[in-house]
Amino acid sequence: MINSFSLYDLVDKLGGEVIDDNKVAVTHVGSLQYAESNAISFFNDTKYNGYLSSTKAAAVILKPEHVLLTSKPKIITNNPYAYFAKVSQLLNPKKVNTPGIHPSAIVHPSSNVPVSCHIAENVCIQNNVILGEQVEIGAGSVVESNVILGDKTILESNVTIKSESIIGENCHIFSGAVIGNDGFGYAEESSADNGKRWVKIPQVGRVIIHAHVDIGANTTIDRGAIDDTVIAEGVKIDNLVQIAHNCRIGAHTVIAGCVGIAGSAIIGEHCRLGGGAMILGHLNIVDHVTISPGSMIMRSIQQSGTYTALMPSQEHSAWLKTAANVRQLTQLTDRVKKIEAALNNIENLKKT
Amino acid sequence: MINSFSLYDLVDKLGGEVIDDNKVAVTHVGSLQYAESNAISFFNDTKYNGYLSSTKAAAVILKPEHVLLTSKPKIITNNPYAYFAKVSQLLNPKKVNTPGIHPSAIVHPSSNVPVSCHIAENVCIQNNVILGEQVEIGAGSVVESNVILGDKTILESNVTIKSESIIGENCHIFSGAVIGNDGFGYAEESSADNGKRWVKIPQVGRVIIHAHVDIGANTTIDRGAIDDTVIAEGVKIDNLVQIAHNCRIGAHTVIAGCVGIAGSAIIGEHCRLGGGAMILGHLNIVDHVTISPGSMIMRSIQQSGTYTALMPSQEHSAWLKTAANVRQLTQLTDRVKKIEAALNNIENLKKT
Amino acid sequence: MINSFSLYDLVDKLGGEVIDDNKVAVTHVGSLQYAESNAISFFNDTKYNGYLSSTKAAAVILKPEHVLLTSKPKIITNNPYAYFAKVSQLLNPKKVNTPGIHPSAIVHPSSNVPVSCHIAENVCIQNNVILGEQVEIGAGSVVESNVILGDKTILESNVTIKSESIIGENCHIFSGAVIGNDGFGYAEESSADNGKRWVKIPQVGRVIIHAHVDIGANTTIDRGAIDDTVIAEGVKIDNLVQIAHNCRIGAHTVIAGCVGIAGSAIIGEHCRLGGGAMILGHLNIVDHVTISPGSMIMRSIQQSGTYTALMPSQEHSAWLKTAANVRQLTQLTDRVKKIEAALNNIENLKKT
Repeated sequence: MINSFSLYDLVDKLGGEVIDDNKVAVTHVGSLQYAESNAISFFNDTKYNGYLSSTKAAAVILKPEHVLLTSKPKIITNNPYAYFAKVSQLLNPKKVNTPGIHPSAIVHPSSNVPVSCHIAENVCIQNNVILGEQVEIGAGSVVESNVILGDKTILESNVTIKSESIIGENCHIFSGAVIGNDGFGYAEESSADNGKRWVKIPQVGRVIIHAHVDIGANTTIDRGAIDDTVIAEGVKIDNLVQIAHNCRIGAHTVIAGCVGIAGSAIIGEHCRLGGGAMILGHLNIVDHVTISPGSMIMRSIQQSGTYTALMPSQEHSAWLKTAANVRQLTQLTDRVKKIEAALNNIENLKKT
Repeated sequence: MINSFSLYDLVDKLGGEVIDDNKVAVTHVGSLQYAESNAISFFNDTKYNGYLSSTKAAAVILKPEHVLLTSKPKIITNNPYAYFAKVSQLLNPKKVNTPGIHPSAIVHPSSNVPVSCHIAENVCIQNNVILGEQVEIGAGSVVESNVILGDKTILESNVTIKSESIIGENCHIFSGAVIGNDGFGYAEESSADNGKRWVKIPQVGRVIIHAHVDIGANTTIDRGAIDDTVIAEGVKIDNLVQIAHNCRIGAHTVIAGCVGIAGSAIIGEHCRLGGGAMILGHLNIVDHVTISPGSMIMRSIQQSGTYTALMPSQEHSAWLKTAANVRQLTQLTDRVKKIEAALNNIENLKKT
Repeated sequence: MINSFSLYDLVDKLGGEVIDDNKVAVTHVGSLQYAESNAISFFNDTKYNGYLSSTKAAAVILKPEHVLLTSKPKIITNNPYAYFAKVSQLLNPKKVNTPGIHPSAIVHPSSNVPVSCHIAENVCIQNNVILGEQVEIGAGSVVESNVILGDKTILESNVTIKSESIIGENCHIFSGAVIGNDGFGYAEESSADNGKRWVKIPQVGRVIIHAHVDIGANTTIDRGAIDDTVIAEGVKIDNLVQIAHNCRIGAHTVIAGCVGIAGSAIIGEHCRLGGGAMILGHLNIVDHVTISPGSMIMRSIQQSGTYTALMPSQEHSAWLKTAANVRQLTQLTDRVKKIEAALNNIENLKKT
C-alpha cells in the first residue's frame, strides 16, 4: 500500500502555500539529485541550484525567496527542511506492530505489560517492570528489574535496559544500546603488599530519561554513582556515544556519533556536540553551545557559541614538519621574544 | 585432528619455491618470536633479523632477496605475508557448522532458509527474509523483515540486521554489529512556545553491502535517509566503527577500529582509514587515500596520498607550554610580521 | 530490607577512628551536595569546603588534617575515598542471584555448570564450556565453545564470549561486551586482474583475562592473531573501548571510555589511559604512565609520567586563525630563522 498526496492535501495538513500546481500527486520523498518523478523534494540553499534545475522530482518545497528558481509545482514555507521531514512522516508512517506478546518472550509475572504493547521474539522482561501503553520491544531485548518505560516508547532489537532505569514517553532506543550500566568508579588503595589496587564504588544511582529522547545503536549511558544520570526531554543521541555516570544533558541537545562525555559533566539545553567530540568530566557547558566534531573540551564553557579544538589536516610530509615545529613552539616563541628585545635595543641605540 | 603439510605440499597448492627442505612437516603457524618447532613462520622486514636468527620455527616463508638470511627450511615467494595468510588458512580451516536450524531458533514461515544453512540457538529470523546457501547465523542474532543475505555469509553471535538490508555473498559480520539502523536525521523547527524542537526525518533508505565485506564487532552502519548507504565489494571494517546514513565506501577500502564517518561522505576504493580517524559528512575522498590514525578530515581530498591531522604528544608539562603557545600562535605570527617590517625599515634606513 | 550501621560498626569492620559521634546510624551513601540526613558522605579536597559546610549528611569520612573542618559526626582515615567505597559496598551489598538455570537457557550437555551458578533467561552456553563456582550469566548472553570462566565471575545481560576465551575469577563483564572476536588481520595481495585484494589471516590466538578484571559495556577485546591477547589481573576497562589482537595490558591498569588500542601494543602495570585516548599498534608503554584523555600516542614511552597530545579548544573564529597559522608554522619558523640571520648580520656590521 502506497500513500499518495496532492500538494493541496499536504498544505491542508501542514500549512504552507501551493504554487504552480499541476495536479501532481506525490508518493515518495527524494533528494533533488536522485528523486524520481513521483517524488517530492526540498531546496534550502542556493549552492544546490544545479540540482534544482535538473531534478526529476514532481514537486519541490522551498522558501519564499526561492520561488522563482524553479517552475516546478511547489510548496512555499519558511522552513523547507522541517516541512520535508513532516511530509516524509506522512508518506512513510511508522509501521505499527500488532499488539501482543510473542510466545517466545519471557515476562516475569510481577511485571505489567498492557495489552496494547508489542513484545517481540525472545524478549526478556524481568521482575517489577512497568510498561506504558503501546510500548514496543524488539527481538532479543532485555529489560531488567524495576524498569519503567513510558507510553509509546520503542526499544529496537537487542537493546539492554539495566535495572531501575526510568525512561519517559515516546522515546526511541536503538539496537545494541545499553542503558543503566554501572558507571566506571573505583578508588585506589594501597594493599598489604604495598601494591595499589582498585576498590569498586557501588553504582547506586539510576538513569532517568525524559520524553522524546532518541538513543542510537550501541550507545551506552551509565547509571549514577550516587545521584542519577539524567537525560532531559527531546535530547537526540546518535550511535556509539558514551555518557558516563552522573552526567546531566539539557533538553533538546543533540549528540552526534562517537561522542564521549566523562562523568558528572553537565551539558546545557539546545547544545550540539559534533561527531567524535569528547567532553571531560565535571565540566559545565551552558545552553546553546556548539562543539565542533572531533574536539576535546577540557574546560567549562560559560558563554554560548561554537568551540573547536582540532589540528588541521595536511599531506603527511608537510604534517611531519608541522608536528616537529609544534613540539618546538615554546622555543620559537622564546626566539621571537629575544628578537624583539634585540630590535628594541637597536631602536634605543638609534635614539641615543 | 591436526592438519600437517610438508613444504612441498604447500608450494603445490600455493606456488613459491622450497629451499633447504629437511623433510619438515608443519602443523601450526607461529610468529618468529614465539613459534614452536612444529610451526611455519614468515619474514618480511630486516628489522626483525634478530627474531629470524633465534626462531624455533620449523620453516620460514621469505622473499627471494632474503634467502641467505637463514639456513632453515624455507619457502621463497614475493609476498611472504599474503602467502603466510594462505598457509594459515590451510592449517586452520574455517570450522563449518553442521547445517540445520536449532530448535530454539524462531524462523517466520514467510522466510526462506535453505537446508544448507546453520541457524544457531535463539536466533530470530522475521518475515520475508531470504538466505542464500550455506549461510551461518550465530546464537542470539536477529534478522529483521525483508533482509537478504548472500551465499556463505556468516553472522556471528548477537548480530542485529535491521529490516530491508541487503548483504552480499561471503560477508562476515561480527558480534554486536548493527546493520541498517535508522540514520541520525532531524530537522529543527520552532514550536508554538517559540522553543526549538527536533522533527525526525524518516530514514527510508537501506544498507546495501556487496560481497566479501567484513564488519567488526559492535560496529554500526546506518540505513540511508532517502537514498541507500552502500559498502562496496571487499571492504574490511574493524570494531566499533560508525558509518552514518548515505555513506558510500569504495571497493577494497579498509577501515580500522573506532573510526567515525559522518553522513553522506563518499570514500574511494583502496583507501585506508587508520584507527580513530574521523571523516566529516558530505566529503569526497578519492581512491588510494590513506588517513593516518586519529586524524579528523574536514575537507574533501582530491589527490591520492597520505593525510594526517594530529597533535604530537609531549610530556605533560612541556605540552602545557605548547598548548598555551598554540593559543597565542596568531599573536606570534603578528609579532613576526611586525619584526619583519621593523627590520625592513632598518635595512631601508641603511640604504639611504 | 535496608542495612543500617553506626559509625562504630563501620570502624569495627573497616578501621579508622570515630570522632564527634552522636549515635548516628547511616543507611545510605551520598555526595556532600545531595546527601540526605540518613547518609554518610566523604570529603577529600578543600575545594569542596562549601559543600562540606552545607551538607545534610549524617556523617562524613575525612582525612586527619581535615578533622576541624566540620563538627558533624565523622570517621577519620587516610584514604577517605577508598573508605567510602567500602562503606558503600557494606550498605549496598551485591545482589546475589538465586542459583539455578532458567528453563529458557540452553546449555550444551558437554559443558559444566556447577549448581552454585545463576544462568538467566535465554542464555546460550555452547559445547565444552567450563564454569567455576557461583558464576552468574545475565539474560541473552552467549558463551561459545571451549570457554572457561573462573569462580564468581559475572557476565551481565547480552554479553558475547567467543570460543576459547579464558576468563579468571571475580571478573565482571558488562552488557554488550564482545570478548574474543577475530582480530583485524589481512594481507594485501595482487589478484589475477592486477587489482589488490585483502586475504584474511586466520585469528588463531585467544583472549586470556586474569582475575578481578572489569570490562565495560559494548567494549571489544579481540583474540590474538597467532599468540594470545592478555589482560592482566585487576585491570579495569570502561565502556566502548577497543583492544585489538595481541595487546598485553599490565596489572591494575585503568582504561577509560572510548579508548582504542591498536594491535600488539604492550601497556605496563598501573597505567591510566584517559577517555578517548588512542594508542598506536606495536608500541611499548612502561609501568605507571598516564595518558591524558583524547591523546593519540604514536611512539613507545620508556619513562613513567603523564603524556598529552591535544589541541587546546578556542572559540571557533579564533580557532580558524590558529588553524591557518598552524598550517603555516613551518614557514613561520623559517621566517624567524631569516630574521635571526638578518639581526646577526646587523650586529656584526655594528662590530666592524
